[in-house]
Amino acid sequence: MANFAIMGFGTVGSGVAEVLRMNGAAIAGKLGEPLQLKYILDVRDLSGTPYAGVAVKDFSILENDPGLDVVVESIGGAKVALDFTRRALLAGKHVVTSNKELVATHGKELLAIAREKNVNYLFEASVGGGIPVLRPLFQCLAGNQIQEVVGILNGTTNYILTRMVKGGIPFDEALKEAQAKGYAEANPAADVEGLDAGRKICILSDLAWGREVLPSDISTQGITAIDLQDVAIASGAGYRIKLLGRAMKLADGRQTAFVAPHLVSESCPIATVDDVFNAIMIRGNAVGDVMFYGRGAGDLPTASAVVGDIMDALEHRAKRRELGWSQPAELIQLETELPLYWYLRGELTPPAGCEVLSGKAVIVGPVPGAEAKALARRVGADTLLPVLR
Amino acid sequence: MANFAIMGFGTVGSGVAEVLRMNGAAIAGKLGEPLQLKYILDVRDLSGTPYAGVAVKDFSILENDPGLDVVVESIGGAKVALDFTRRALLAGKHVVTSNKELVATHGKELLAIAREKNVNYLFEASVGGGIPVLRPLFQCLAGNQIQEVVGILNGTTNYILTRMVKGGIPFDEALKEAQAKGYAEANPAADVEGLDAGRKICILSDLAWGREVLPSDISTQGITAIDLQDVAIASGAGYRIKLLGRAMKLADGRQTAFVAPHLVSESCPIATVDDVFNAIMIRGNAVGDVMFYGRGAGDLPTASAVVGDIMDALEHRAKRRELGWSQPAELIQLETELPLYWYLRGELTPPAGCEVLSGKAVIVGPVPGAEAKALARRVGADTLLPVLR
Repeated sequence: MANFAIMGFGTVGSGVAEVLRMNGAAIAGKLGEPLQLKYILDVRDLSGTPYAGVAVKDFSILENDPGLDVVVESIGGAKVALDFTRRALLAGKHVVTSNKELVATHGKELLAIAREKNVNYLFEASVGGGIPVLRPLFQCLAGNQIQEVVGILNGTTNYILTRMVKGGIPFDEALKEAQAKGYAEANPAADVEGLDAGRKICILSDLAWGREVLPSDISTQGITAIDLQDVAIASGAGYRIKLLGRAMKLADGRQTAFVAPHLVSESCPIATVDDVFNAIMIRGNAVGDVMFYGRGAGDLPTASAVVGDIMDALEHRAKRRELGWSQPAELIQLETELPLYWYLRGELTPPAGCEVLSGKAVIVGPVPGAEAKALARRVGADTLLPVLR
Repeated sequence: MANFAIMGFGTVGSGVAEVLRMNGAAIAGKLGEPLQLKYILDVRDLSGTPYAGVAVKDFSILENDPGLDVVVESIGGAKVALDFTRRALLAGKHVVTSNKELVATHGKELLAIAREKNVNYLFEASVGGGIPVLRPLFQCLAGNQIQEVVGILNGTTNYILTRMVKGGIPFDEALKEAQAKGYAEANPAADVEGLDAGRKICILSDLAWGREVLPSDISTQGITAIDLQDVAIASGAGYRIKLLGRAMKLADGRQTAFVAPHLVSESCPIATVDDVFNAIMIRGNAVGDVMFYGRGAGDLPTASAVVGDIMDALEHRAKRRELGWSQPAELIQLETELPLYWYLRGELTPPAGCEVLSGKAVIVGPVPGAEAKALARRVGADTLLPVLR
């Protein structure tokens, strides 16, 4: 018999309980022992629900129970969640989470505690919801030197962009639709300004190269300024506009990570990933490009990843998963040095050697961002976006 | 220091040596110890090559070296490879392979020996080349009940179909092109008749549901009979023709697995996977649909998966990966009971309730295969293909 607790009984926490209800017998069969939900820690009153019998309000009950094996942290944020995660790890519990903010900002410290206490701190659900991507990255592709990780990491903004591209409606209207469907929150800032995608590309970068990249250190541009003009020009020229998180390691060892709307060539499989779906492409020096696709959010998909991690933590009770990252990476910023292709639009004079998309839009490159910016000024372009092809 | 040997120094075996040469330092960093290629067992003479110093011709040298940790079996086939794999496992070596024929036909026995000797028998490279798919299936998605696994599992046939669809050239010509490019072998039977895809869908099915499905027990239809008429009709109606391996578990517990050319709706992400790329879609009852995409063959991509498995085996030296499948599954055959959508083409009278693709092609369903066959006869259709949408 293995026991676990859920801290924070919102969308993800209740999804985990539901997956256990649906698949408990099969999970026990695979684990070789039953998996029991022993506690639910939540500020809300769960009396009158099927979970009344396991509801608790005091974290120290979890902390002090020597029979508790795994704690699921689905509280969110980096305050209470940080405190409880630290204490749970220090108490020798394995911790599993979907909390990208906490992993991106405090993952290094928490993984160091986990190592010291020989327990697992696992967070597959923090990137791509239910899509297996972190474990494939650090395990299946371990024989590779990773060169680039790029993807659609936020379903809300991908839904909005899909509606803008396919429905021809402006950003504000698409956002309202997403809110009506429950895909976007009342305060959509973390999604539409790219912060959520930023946390995720930091975690991917941390795992790909083993050095810390903090969300506060990277350039993050959202989709609020996307113009229907650019959408139309891109579509007409065989490109789609997608919000991408992107991380690269250059030949000289320096790294970059950023979030920005990109023009993506339709020949790239990421371009056709629409609606709330996510897709993450990883380029390794042996494997080439591999891509992972699926629903990046939602209660059951995210819970699927959490439950997979619970089972993995239990299978690695004796010898923890080796996982962690060290000192900060040496970052360069997109704006200055990175040689990329760039989309320029405005009342411009096409520069020599560019690809002309329309009378007032061109693609240039590969050139460093600083050069592209100067060129944009020189030829009179007022819109500048990176291009993935 | 960890030691490994390569048995069979062909495309995959030499790819493994090359990946170690490229990435050895990074691999040692992740493993916490250097990984050394101690032996290459091959019938060929390697003197005069950089590998002369580790070349051996006698398997018993590997078998009797207590300092040898892992053996890579890249011999292929199920004769010598079976004998050497058995003996290596019995000698307490971990074995890693890309040999789908051996895993599909003798995996159950070999995994049972591995369990008895507490060693790992790992085969990520046997399906999808370098694409991480088996480990995500049995580990990341372990909290799910898997409902369906379907995919483009053979790059050679996907290349040929892509050329037929996009280039409008007949099968024979596309095959010759594939052979000229080195994508198809001189004797292309295993690819174009679907045997290779059949072995892979059996392995996926074994892992998804834990019960053995043998290649000889499943229906396997290749692409030799695909007609340019069907290619044109499908393209015009928003479908693509793809050779799919497909395995399902029905609500009543029975399973099916088969390989057949399908009409795939363009709204399904598998439809746009072209050329030599592979893509595998897995449907779980919690996660929904997730898809894995990349190069399904080639020396370095396949070696990437082999090296990942070597590292995983070494990390699970003390406690092996729990992996295996048991008694044969209760199978139903595609032809009889499975309710699917079907494409019918011929000088036919469209049956009631069908979707009309053109004057002489329709889609019906979902109906069991036996019914679709009877219907095809009744309305005068001479072509019948399953549909994925």
